[in-house]
Amino acid sequence: MNFQTLYAKDKKLVLLDQTVLPDKLAYNEYTDYRDVIPAIQRLEVRGAPAIGIAAAYAMALGVQAATDTGVDQLRQTMIEIGKEIKDARPTAVNLAWAVDRVLEVAAGYNGDSADEYRQIFWNEGDAILKEDQEMCEAMGRYGAEQLPDKCTILTHCNAGALATGGIGTALAVIYKAVEMGKDIKVFADETRPLLQGARLTCWELMENGVDVTLITDNMAGYTMSLGKIDAVVTGADRITKNGDVANKIGTYSVAVLAQKHGIPFYVAAPESTFDKFIESGKDIPIEQRAPEEVTEGFGRRTAPNGTKVFSPAFDITPHELVTAYFTDTGVRPGGRQA
Amino acid sequence: MNFQTLYAKDKKLVLLDQTVLPDKLAYNEYTDYRDVIPAIQRLEVRGAPAIGIAAAYAMALGVQAATDTGVDQLRQTMIEIGKEIKDARPTAVNLAWAVDRVLEVAAGYNGDSADEYRQIFWNEGDAILKEDQEMCEAMGRYGAEQLPDKCTILTHCNAGALATGGIGTALAVIYKAVEMGKDIKVFADETRPLLQGARLTCWELMENGVDVTLITDNMAGYTMSLGKIDAVVTGADRITKNGDVANKIGTYSVAVLAQKHGIPFYVAAPESTFDKFIESGKDIPIEQRAPEEVTEGFGRRTAPNGTKVFSPAFDITPHELVTAYFTDTGVRPGGRQA
Repeated sequence: MNFQTLYAKDKKLVLLDQTVLPDKLAYNEYTDYRDVIPAIQRLEVRGAPAIGIAAAYAMALGVQAATDTGVDQLRQTMIEIGKEIKDARPTAVNLAWAVDRVLEVAAGYNGDSADEYRQIFWNEGDAILKEDQEMCEAMGRYGAEQLPDKCTILTHCNAGALATGGIGTALAVIYKAVEMGKDIKVFADETRPLLQGARLTCWELMENGVDVTLITDNMAGYTMSLGKIDAVVTGADRITKNGDVANKIGTYSVAVLAQKHGIPFYVAAPESTFDKFIESGKDIPIEQRAPEEVTEGFGRRTAPNGTKVFSPAFDITPHELVTAYFTDTGVRPGGRQA
Repeated sequence: MNFQTLYAKDKKLVLLDQTVLPDKLAYNEYTDYRDVIPAIQRLEVRGAPAIGIAAAYAMALGVQAATDTGVDQLRQTMIEIGKEIKDARPTAVNLAWAVDRVLEVAAGYNGDSADEYRQIFWNEGDAILKEDQEMCEAMGRYGAEQLPDKCTILTHCNAGALATGGIGTALAVIYKAVEMGKDIKVFADETRPLLQGARLTCWELMENGVDVTLITDNMAGYTMSLGKIDAVVTGADRITKNGDVANKIGTYSVAVLAQKHGIPFYVAAPESTFDKFIESGKDIPIEQRAPEEVTEGFGRRTAPNGTKVFSPAFDITPHELVTAYFTDTGVRPGGRQA
């Protein structure tokens, strides 16, 4: 990769600003966790694994700047900051997972040095980032092994290096398959409203020399009907106990269309995306986004003033539509029968 | 209606410029058929019935400007001009239908007055426009009778007054149902790449006081899964002998999703959209549009330079996915079983 989506440096968090891609490759530095929350909300950093890592480092920024003198006071402060960060976006499980994890590790600290306590958060952020990189590699390898030697894959949104600290989830499968010498082509749904497919997936696949063709979301069905797609691979923002998948809006439509055409539908996600506390998809809160993302998507108003908009950021793909899950620990069967 | 999509005035063709809606309501006048062809191609006028009417009037402009002195020479010239106009766009049958119709009527002229011969084309253009208005009314009425008294309808692209000389095809059904006192709400797919749903359908429904909510194309499946949609009504650009439907790209996906959710899928189209010479959808030529419509949607580039694009303008919905066709002569059953 010629870029890194996010990392810590000199007690700062550095984010590749995904709102300005593909026009510009720009990095922003953060020293205050209160600035990271809106950065997550405006999708400067996005993708379930990446916002988990960003959340861990935001906690580190929070504890770094906290003026409390004793460890006990810091512990109280960090619980409050953790709540704020968890609320940044409601759908992806990784935010809460990362916050809880760093708090749990910090809870194990028995000393009385505020500096040592603070360092725990930075170390744990680094650990989560490193694990994420390893998970991406493993997930990609497990998934790539499942693909035929010659294969055209449809993907939705961006579940790539730009969504993680490593080489991605869905796109890790593609990178690994190419590395194994397989003949891989990709179709990318542009993914309205924010065009992560056009702006991010096309950009990173082209940067890495992968053959990619862009389509609008509403072309996916017709493209399948022409026999052009051999498999669908997407990421996930949260997977429930029964295997239902919350992912970028439009994933559900693609899964229905894949089933209709007998095309396998794979979900690539690390174990941390599996929420052990939620039974099924109907219990996942779905974030609603601002109407302007739909009506002024291209910097120019494209619907009449006052147009009502329904804009869910995610949808739920029931496990019955999933052929298999590619995780960092192996391949889990999905609930789809054919 | 507070607007008229197209009409003839003082031997000129007037087109409501649909490329600048909803920003501006502007009309352009044409005196040369050679300017009407690119206007059709850049979708200044679009929709199968409307481009049929535009083609008939373009023929009238052609014969008006032709300098041939005798009727026999004019006949030869008009056959050539007819070929040019038919080639403007390949998928909608109405272009060829309108050109052939005016030529056939003109062929019946036995006199030797070039002026009388020319007038035939204007009269036939007027006749096609008037018939279209009547067909829209009839189609709308037949369709509206099929809808329940309280009903939320999803529509795709713009099959409204802006696509016809009258009150539309799919949207005629909605206008008539409202007129009958039914409680009708509409969801409009924005319809990438050119956003006819956002720009045109929302605009004309709001102009006419109909409750409409805009969604991106990839939200249709999830919206159906939430139980928000009771019926789908779309237009058609061409319907084959076996009932397969060519319509705006994305229609096929919506039809698959409607079947999955047990939601009726209706196609509203006048008899002139039924092509009596083509057996099935696989024989319909599908127009490919320029990649920039996808990558530079609204004056701003949203995909990396050099991105490959697949951009079919239409897709084919097989008759097995159609519940019924609303035509100007009544309701025809489709091939969908449930």
